[in-house]
Amino acid sequence: MESHSLSQLRKKLQALQYKEGLDDSSAPLVEKLVTDLLHTTDSYRDLKLQVANKAQELEDGRNKVGSQHTQYHSGV
Amino acid sequence: MESHSLSQLRKKLQALQYKEGLDDSSAPLVEKLVTDLLHTTDSYRDLKLQVANKAQELEDGRNKVGSQHTQYHSGV
Repeated sequence: MESHSLSQLRKKLQALQYKEGLDDSSAPLVEKLVTDLLHTTDSYRDLKLQVANKAQELEDGRNKVGSQHTQYHSGV
Repeated sequence: MESHSLSQLRKKLQALQYKEGLDDSSAPLVEKLVTDLLHTTDSYRDLKLQVANKAQELEDGRNKVGSQHTQYHSGV
């Protein structure tokens, strides 16, 4: 790995709070692991949003059914 | 890192299809990255199940409302 990429990788690790040492020869492995970790973390965040949206949709649906039920029984 | 842990780590990397080299001095960093990656992957899978369940719950709710609506209008 060229020194620029290596220094970028070290900065990335620092930003991600990894303080353990890294030597040149393991840099390609570490680069790949970091990429996969960031990718998985992003996917997790996206999915978390989807869960929140589905939960909201479900809640809205229940409230709608509840209010129709009330209207029906009160004759409104 | 003692040689047993190092050999365990190498086996884990192999199982996960990481073929890049690893030297002793970077083993603690790589160990931590692999642990975090597996943890995030597990969380992602759990959440994926939750999304599927919520979607199913929503679908069931919609079907139920749809069938009640039909019953109401057909006077059943």
